[in-house]
Amino acid sequence: MQSITSNQNNRVKTWRKLQSKKGRLTSGQYLIEGWHIVNEAIKHGGRIKALIVTDADFLEQLQFDSTTVETYLITPEVAKHISATETPQGIFAILNTADYHESIPEKLGGSWLMLDNIQDPGNIGTMVRTADAAGMNGVVFGKGTVDIYNPKVVRSMQGSQFHIRLFSGDLSRWLAAFKKHNIPTYGTELNKRAIAYDNATPTKQFALIMGNEGNGVAADLLDKTDQNLYIPMNGEAESLNVAVAAGILIFHFI
Amino acid sequence: MQSITSNQNNRVKTWRKLQSKKGRLTSGQYLIEGWHIVNEAIKHGGRIKALIVTDADFLEQLQFDSTTVETYLITPEVAKHISATETPQGIFAILNTADYHESIPEKLGGSWLMLDNIQDPGNIGTMVRTADAAGMNGVVFGKGTVDIYNPKVVRSMQGSQFHIRLFSGDLSRWLAAFKKHNIPTYGTELNKRAIAYDNATPTKQFALIMGNEGNGVAADLLDKTDQNLYIPMNGEAESLNVAVAAGILIFHFI
Repeated sequence: MQSITSNQNNRVKTWRKLQSKKGRLTSGQYLIEGWHIVNEAIKHGGRIKALIVTDADFLEQLQFDSTTVETYLITPEVAKHISATETPQGIFAILNTADYHESIPEKLGGSWLMLDNIQDPGNIGTMVRTADAAGMNGVVFGKGTVDIYNPKVVRSMQGSQFHIRLFSGDLSRWLAAFKKHNIPTYGTELNKRAIAYDNATPTKQFALIMGNEGNGVAADLLDKTDQNLYIPMNGEAESLNVAVAAGILIFHFI
Repeated sequence: MQSITSNQNNRVKTWRKLQSKKGRLTSGQYLIEGWHIVNEAIKHGGRIKALIVTDADFLEQLQFDSTTVETYLITPEVAKHISATETPQGIFAILNTADYHESIPEKLGGSWLMLDNIQDPGNIGTMVRTADAAGMNGVVFGKGTVDIYNPKVVRSMQGSQFHIRLFSGDLSRWLAAFKKHNIPTYGTELNKRAIAYDNATPTKQFALIMGNEGNGVAADLLDKTDQNLYIPMNGEAESLNVAVAAGILIFHFI
């Protein structure tokens, strides 16, 4: 196991670059951190390239043959330098991002969540986790939505990327594919065309689009869905948090 | 309007102390920031003590007679010093926290959310916003739950504290009060005693307890509810985010 004590080390510099989308695209890798997520990666055969720990004993505590990958012992200072959190747990893994799926599967079925231009990484991660918990088949990250492997998205997904397939792509093309497979598509909006979600009959197959926190789903996408939905609100809050709204809609359909 | 340019100014020091619970309890005041929340405070007659801006013109843009309160012009540096965000909008207000309700109303009715030992301020704020959107009657902050006026709670409530009554108190006493008023009470847990939430018949009146992110609702509270509920999950995620779960349950009942 290689020991690294300086933030100036070249490998540390490379790891830190994984905090940026550019760094992830260039290397084809991303960083995960914390016991829960690293254990999930191991359990689900995540493509682990390297393990990085602040304590050599940590490797013993993993259900994983760490001789098969590169391992690094780092100082708490280096851990803080490469971490996206204030108080790192001292365990990290480098994974390949090969599970970016860019192309639409030829056979489509089941239930799907599409994210149009969602800005908050915590909201995105929470929605992926909700889709996972509901047993949905996949999540599609559309244009403008924060990158799948953004460290804050990864943190709030809590390992759901190992359970559910994540795609990125053009939501118009995905809508056309769902239509071809007779999967009903739903947008979310608040206007005359939309119906209250509890008036929509739950179906086994469906594809739901959630939209930008401030502006909702793009108009050109709403025009292409089979039906648009809203959540009736009796109170004074102007809107629901987008991840809460997604949870209400998904669990209505599932 | 008094102009303040230094972080060492005594008033600035007092404002910054409002970031801590101790500072809020000592002064009986809290700080709100950003256009949306300040406008909500004005619209709903929030008890504004002072307005603090980085640009004197900002006061003109408010639907508020700012001559009735203290006003301060500060520099962007001071704004950053007193703000809980990285990129402050340059508008703040100091409010009295008099709307801490400690005692249980004599007449209780409608729908209520109780928060037991919830740790994440974002989750708390999102749940208050959801309760507000759903038109619930109040939210009770139980033991261990982050303070109502924590800046991160305030930020994610997005002004809902001006629409819905927020209480803090002992949830056992609240449960007894709901029972006295024949309001059905529900806990959330995952065990043999609990039933799937969609098997619980929606009722106009109800009180729901959401629990700690890791440990759920305290056992002694679960023992005192009329019925405990769980959300059936088909997927692999171990749990839902607590605010998403609250949204699903609340909108099932409402």
